[in-house]
Amino acid sequence: MRYFEIEMKVRDYECDAQGIVNNANYLHYFEATRHELLESCGVHFSTLTDNKIYPVVRNISVAYKHSLRGSDRFLSRIRLGKDGLKYFFYQDIYRLPDMRLCVRGIVETVCIIDGKASPQTIFDEALKEYFE
Amino acid sequence: MRYFEIEMKVRDYECDAQGIVNNANYLHYFEATRHELLESCGVHFSTLTDNKIYPVVRNISVAYKHSLRGSDRFLSRIRLGKDGLKYFFYQDIYRLPDMRLCVRGIVETVCIIDGKASPQTIFDEALKEYFE
Amino acid sequence: MRYFEIEMKVRDYECDAQGIVNNANYLHYFEATRHELLESCGVHFSTLTDNKIYPVVRNISVAYKHSLRGSDRFLSRIRLGKDGLKYFFYQDIYRLPDMRLCVRGIVETVCIIDGKASPQTIFDEALKEYFE
Amino acid sequence: MRYFEIEMKVRDYECDAQGIVNNANYLHYFEATRHELLESCGVHFSTLTDNKIYPVVRNISVAYKHSLRGSDRFLSRIRLGKDGLKYFFYQDIYRLPDMRLCVRGIVETVCIIDGKASPQTIFDEALKEYFE
Repeated sequence: MRYFEIEMKVRDYECDAQGIVNNANYLHYFEATRHELLESCGVHFSTLTDNKIYPVVRNISVAYKHSLRGSDRFLSRIRLGKDGLKYFFYQDIYRLPDMRLCVRGIVETVCIIDGKASPQTIFDEALKEYFE
Repeated sequence: MRYFEIEMKVRDYECDAQGIVNNANYLHYFEATRHELLESCGVHFSTLTDNKIYPVVRNISVAYKHSLRGSDRFLSRIRLGKDGLKYFFYQDIYRLPDMRLCVRGIVETVCIIDGKASPQTIFDEALKEYFE
Repeated sequence: MRYFEIEMKVRDYECDAQGIVNNANYLHYFEATRHELLESCGVHFSTLTDNKIYPVVRNISVAYKHSLRGSDRFLSRIRLGKDGLKYFFYQDIYRLPDMRLCVRGIVETVCIIDGKASPQTIFDEALKEYFE
Repeated sequence: MRYFEIEMKVRDYECDAQGIVNNANYLHYFEATRHELLESCGVHFSTLTDNKIYPVVRNISVAYKHSLRGSDRFLSRIRLGKDGLKYFFYQDIYRLPDMRLCVRGIVETVCIIDGKASPQTIFDEALKEYFE
């Protein structure tokens, strides 16, 4: 199955007093990766918002396996699935350079247009190569 | 089952360009509520860190049911469960004043001492009334 | 000179690996306090945004005198000044209960309507008692 | 005068309901850039913290000239100055690709060792080429 990935790096302010990345910040990494994936397919998130198309997160499950620390580099990888109006983003974070799996998440989103979940034609088209 | 709750309020910077609280920030609300619960039982999180006792999050699942917006007041409620070395925090966020359920999460934590999951005697004692 | 103040509390995720509140987060405290001040005068920030009235920060200067740590309670106090189209918020943060001055800032804002700095009639009216 | 710079990109969650990067987040960009500068000279921020060497910010002044928006790429540039125990970081943020100056800041730091401001020999050595 085809995947998309970007390299990122922990910023020190993302760590808390334990010296490790705070659990909430991985959701920020996940989101940044989804938006990069969209951009790589020609869809800019801000354009969606400007057009009142609101992709929203419905469910998230995250397994924290190993902590990232200040300045760690990591790979944020994403695969896609779809079921009706729901998109599923399977998101893994691997520490570099040893490729240790740190966090694994599943993010379920729907697209809200005029206040209700709607077919995401724009996504279906842009992301089609990731569903093959 | 006994629960703990605090009233909180959305800060505008916690909203993103869609005008709603960003999905990651609910994990911040959850964490703040857990730490308030601990404090109400006499355990300060910073004391734990100073003593090299590190409660860490292992798994989180979150269902986003309704979005909070800038300046919304809300109730953050928490109930506890335990299974061996694992603590489970059942966390709900209700918008005020209409008590609409906005977010429901389950946060599983373990306590790391000397690098491995360890019995959380300090928690068992402090939080015992929440397990009855 | 009249001032407005609210009590706040450090959330642990706002601290970084040094165990102290990260310098950027004080700007979040400042902003939250300004919005509370507005609300106490009947002006909701989200209403402004909905009406395309955008108060924006033009200049900030901050003196960091003493660090806040996890779970510290503090008082966030604000006084106002005005010069033409510019509003000046004089913002101080005092640790509780010892009232030690931790951070002192001056935040200069203007109000953007249709893309340019405009008279802030709505603020002048709402905040007038703070200018007397 | 020699400068250091890195290219960065706005993450959408860094924008607030106005659709622009929240004022506090520029301090995060500034910090990330300072730490990258240090790393490029062989000094890792987490190593400093591990060794109880705490560079802390004493004063910040920021002029916000133009807002960055979601997904904007930008250049974060830094020059250094020194006066006794104080380091001054002159930090500019330019939007890409048009190089419009968006934010200009001066960050004054000192190095805390054993609770008081101390000579930053490690920095003087590592950063010397930026002072010539």
